Amino acid sequence: MKRLRVAVVGATGAVGREMTQVLAKRSFPVKKLRLLASKRSAGKTMDTPFGKLVVEELTEEALAGLDLALFAAGSGVAGTMAPLALAQGAVVVDNSSAFRMDPSVPLVVPEVNPDAMTTADRLIANPNCSTILLLVVLAPLARALGLRRVIVSTYQAVSGVGQKGLDALRRETERVLAGEKPMPSTLPFPSAARHRTIAFNLVPQVDRFAEDGYTKEEWKMVDETRKILAMPDLPITATTVRVPVFRSHAESVYIETETQVDLALVREILGGAQGVEVVDNPDAFEYPTPLDSTDRGEILVGRIRRDLGEPRAVNLWLVGDQLLKGAALNAVQIAEKALAGGWWSQ
Amino acid sequence: MKRLRVAVVGATGAVGREMTQVLAKRSFPVKKLRLLASKRSAGKTMDTPFGKLVVEELTEEALAGLDLALFAAGSGVAGTMAPLALAQGAVVVDNSSAFRMDPSVPLVVPEVNPDAMTTADRLIANPNCSTILLLVVLAPLARALGLRRVIVSTYQAVSGVGQKGLDALRRETERVLAGEKPMPSTLPFPSAARHRTIAFNLVPQVDRFAEDGYTKEEWKMVDETRKILAMPDLPITATTVRVPVFRSHAESVYIETETQVDLALVREILGGAQGVEVVDNPDAFEYPTPLDSTDRGEILVGRIRRDLGEPRAVNLWLVGDQLLKGAALNAVQIAEKALAGGWWSQ
Repeated sequence: MKRLRVAVVGATGAVGREMTQVLAKRSFPVKKLRLLASKRSAGKTMDTPFGKLVVEELTEEALAGLDLALFAAGSGVAGTMAPLALAQGAVVVDNSSAFRMDPSVPLVVPEVNPDAMTTADRLIANPNCSTILLLVVLAPLARALGLRRVIVSTYQAVSGVGQKGLDALRRETERVLAGEKPMPSTLPFPSAARHRTIAFNLVPQVDRFAEDGYTKEEWKMVDETRKILAMPDLPITATTVRVPVFRSHAESVYIETETQVDLALVREILGGAQGVEVVDNPDAFEYPTPLDSTDRGEILVGRIRRDLGEPRAVNLWLVGDQLLKGAALNAVQIAEKALAGGWWSQ
Repeated sequence: MKRLRVAVVGATGAVGREMTQVLAKRSFPVKKLRLLASKRSAGKTMDTPFGKLVVEELTEEALAGLDLALFAAGSGVAGTMAPLALAQGAVVVDNSSAFRMDPSVPLVVPEVNPDAMTTADRLIANPNCSTILLLVVLAPLARALGLRRVIVSTYQAVSGVGQKGLDALRRETERVLAGEKPMPSTLPFPSAARHRTIAFNLVPQVDRFAEDGYTKEEWKMVDETRKILAMPDLPITATTVRVPVFRSHAESVYIETETQVDLALVREILGGAQGVEVVDNPDAFEYPTPLDSTDRGEILVGRIRRDLGEPRAVNLWLVGDQLLKGAALNAVQIAEKALAGGWWSQ
């Protein structure tokens, strides 16, 4: 198999580190791996499954000679630098929101819409983490039963804010347990004009506020779900909340289908769905929790039950590792799909 | 004003302690306060705003000579002992689920349905904590705009499991931060055959499982809401989740009204509603969080916005102190209502 020259852009961040691990774990055919990051991190040595590597500064020159660039940087960096990687011949999988809603850019969850990407596409966008988790479960139900409406409330881990989020939760929690003030400095996002405590608390804001009182995270879930399912008018609404959990997101989801719910059928569909594991045995206290999904690639789903008000609707609870399937794993799966599809075989 | 002989039953638990504090803070006319608890706690001395008091064992004799018994015990104890208090002349306000769905027992949130209790009622039930929080916000909207449907996902604090829940969250968290295993022993409830970790985790089970895959907590929210609003067929569904927060519950709520939502009107209704405080200024990072509501009697509500799929629906986020308005405060408010209504004036 052809081996590729791969760069991870934003290699020192929480998602970038995970991408490097996932490339190794899944035996992605890496000829040479390069770790790119901001000037601040350049020169640093990182231990990776590909050996000790020195982090290089992300410049136009550093993006030359690549087959694949996995971007795990912010949307500002991606917006500027991804085109430079593309222009120099790399295929780009971008984890940021920079290109997701661009009609010419495929937005892909490999289990859901693999056919949205063709060899003509050199830039593929990785969806928002909460959106990926939702779609892996929602899409098979939508395909089999039709979809009328979705209402989702999220319980999102601090890993969504990156390493700073992970550090903040630990630091604030240690302070509170020591009887000190938590001194919040990171949530809802590091550059916010005011910070809110996450230790033993909930922050009902993920990302910045946008139109109509919804946050960007909430709009991402709405817009990206509509795009991935190719249902531009799907009634879907979201409430996204940050919780004091390290790295797996959970979602409470109301799914209204076209027909009266047959729970056995719903379980059968989910049981056979790619990337889904049903964990739903209440009598044995078995249902998905964030800790259960840590370091796992599957989306765990449980608490599957008929809605009490609408006979066509089902309620369920899903959990997935935000850094893996919510980000790094999905990006590498997109690259694997490209590899299998002959992207680099010419 | 007539002063009453009051007993707090279950006085050493998290809710019982809070009841004693609330009686003092609200200057409830207590002539003599008695603290009753299980045999295990009897003889223990407690510092209270009414002086040092010795805890007495809860027996039939101990329930004699009371004007008011505030029950903060489990439903088993309440089911047995509340009738003994009633038979000896006490008015009982019971915080357990034992009598809530009894058609002859009023289930009261004083801001919502004060007229459900009359001087003929000697036993009044205090609703489930999550139900109270929801109803304080839901009822004024239902009255003004009509109500078609409710979908709620909760984020519930460990105080709902009592002092053991508070202790478990602290203990497990300390272990995890020390690099040890959390050794769960308390959630979803102490007598469960299997325990789940709550430190840095979520447990999508509150109380035991009941019919149709829903937990008792979820059914309480459904059944009690229907009873309090006198809407026996209201389509309402709930997903209840335990989160690593100490003592305030939060809820993400979808409320479908009879008419197209006018957000300014919704804000006006909630702004004027008794027991509600609107905290909704996203630009200043102002929205309710559990820590904001600790030790406060009001239900804080924010993230008020039009649903993106249904023009008659509004989504909002509410937070309330589980031990106060969710339990102790509401019970004392019921007693105050009885006092003002002449229950003890004959």
